[in-house]
Amino acid sequence: MSADFVIGIHAVSAQLRQAPGSCRRLLCADKPGSRLRQVIEAAQRAGIEVSLEHRARLDELCGSDKHQGCVLLIDSTSNAATLAECLEAVDANSLFLVLDGIQDPHNLGACLRSADAAGVDAVIIPRDRAVKVNPTVRKVAAGAAESVVLLEVTNLARALEQLKQAGVWIYGTSDRADGSLYDHDYRGPVALVMGAEGKGLRRLTMEACDYLVGLPMRGQVESLNVSVATGICLYEIQRARGQNA
Amino acid sequence: MSADFVIGIHAVSAQLRQAPGSCRRLLCADKPGSRLRQVIEAAQRAGIEVSLEHRARLDELCGSDKHQGCVLLIDSTSNAATLAECLEAVDANSLFLVLDGIQDPHNLGACLRSADAAGVDAVIIPRDRAVKVNPTVRKVAAGAAESVVLLEVTNLARALEQLKQAGVWIYGTSDRADGSLYDHDYRGPVALVMGAEGKGLRRLTMEACDYLVGLPMRGQVESLNVSVATGICLYEIQRARGQNA
Repeated sequence: MSADFVIGIHAVSAQLRQAPGSCRRLLCADKPGSRLRQVIEAAQRAGIEVSLEHRARLDELCGSDKHQGCVLLIDSTSNAATLAECLEAVDANSLFLVLDGIQDPHNLGACLRSADAAGVDAVIIPRDRAVKVNPTVRKVAAGAAESVVLLEVTNLARALEQLKQAGVWIYGTSDRADGSLYDHDYRGPVALVMGAEGKGLRRLTMEACDYLVGLPMRGQVESLNVSVATGICLYEIQRARGQNA
Repeated sequence: MSADFVIGIHAVSAQLRQAPGSCRRLLCADKPGSRLRQVIEAAQRAGIEVSLEHRARLDELCGSDKHQGCVLLIDSTSNAATLAECLEAVDANSLFLVLDGIQDPHNLGACLRSADAAGVDAVIIPRDRAVKVNPTVRKVAAGAAESVVLLEVTNLARALEQLKQAGVWIYGTSDRADGSLYDHDYRGPVALVMGAEGKGLRRLTMEACDYLVGLPMRGQVESLNVSVATGICLYEIQRARGQNA
């Protein structure tokens, strides 16, 4: 069990609400305003120790001043699962999100938030050459870094092969795809694969996909932000499957 | 005509490609690498003066070190239009995006990028209590701050009334909406209204809407990032209208 921390009013509140068992101690800026006092009360209701600190001490602890006056010490996530566990639970409505090397913590955080909202079963990320879940990711994810099942895999192409063997259809997104996101009904278990910012899917990842799909681009820009594209694709897959009724 | 600047390799390249007539001078860091050299060549092909500067000078000029070694001086956007011009051009496929007080330049930039990609006719923002188009917005928008028609209005509720009188249906998004995004076919001219981060729509804005719609939230988080939600809604409206075929 390793220690970690969550910063920011929204993310700390979400962690206290969703995973109180993981919370060890809340550090708050002294002279808290009304929003911080609400966070303190939530922590006290959950039986979590609260201490007031100078802001400079919080800055030093986090290595940034973006904590909004609250830092929650937690035991590292217990929502990590193994690929084998996920493959055993595959059914016709399974939906996986595979992120092929996201670099920006804001994008990873927003993707986790969208994955939670869209009802994704697990998010799969590569162990190397990609951003990890860190305090910035947790803050942007607004609680989803704790609620979404997250799998780190050493070899992404091999993980995609294992998903395929479990009956999962692999849809990769690409600017250069012949097909459109809107050409499919997404029946059966699905994994959506998104490429890294600017670079898109790596060759081996692309080759592991059953289908490549693109988003219609009606204007001058060449691509969407990866977290926006992820949200559009996940919600369209669930809509096409009749999950929005 | 006022002066402004665009920073970052992606945004500068987009500006040179899409609006070369607006470009006045390119300032590049000395000892440029291969990506910067491509930007310099694009500027030279467009007949734009290029000068090499110390990075510290670029930092000072931009007030930040996020310029990636290139700063493009431009004449301020000429894509501003008037609401009257937009209302005259309303037809059955018109799509407007109204942003009710976005505060974060990254969110405004990503919304403009999605608006361009989804084929929005104009983006309407309030003149006060909202972030303006600044160099950060331009960088994140990846060219869309130049390509999308942008309207600043003094009174957003009044602008919505004028849209209504021109036959435009107003759809506001809200976490507390009874209806779903997926309940409508979005026939006829449409304006999608998105609220500010965390706060949602203001009361007067909400009252001006014909319909309030929400996105299905299947997990633990309470809302999506506003730029992700904007992308999902714009693409769903175009899909429901049969614009993706």
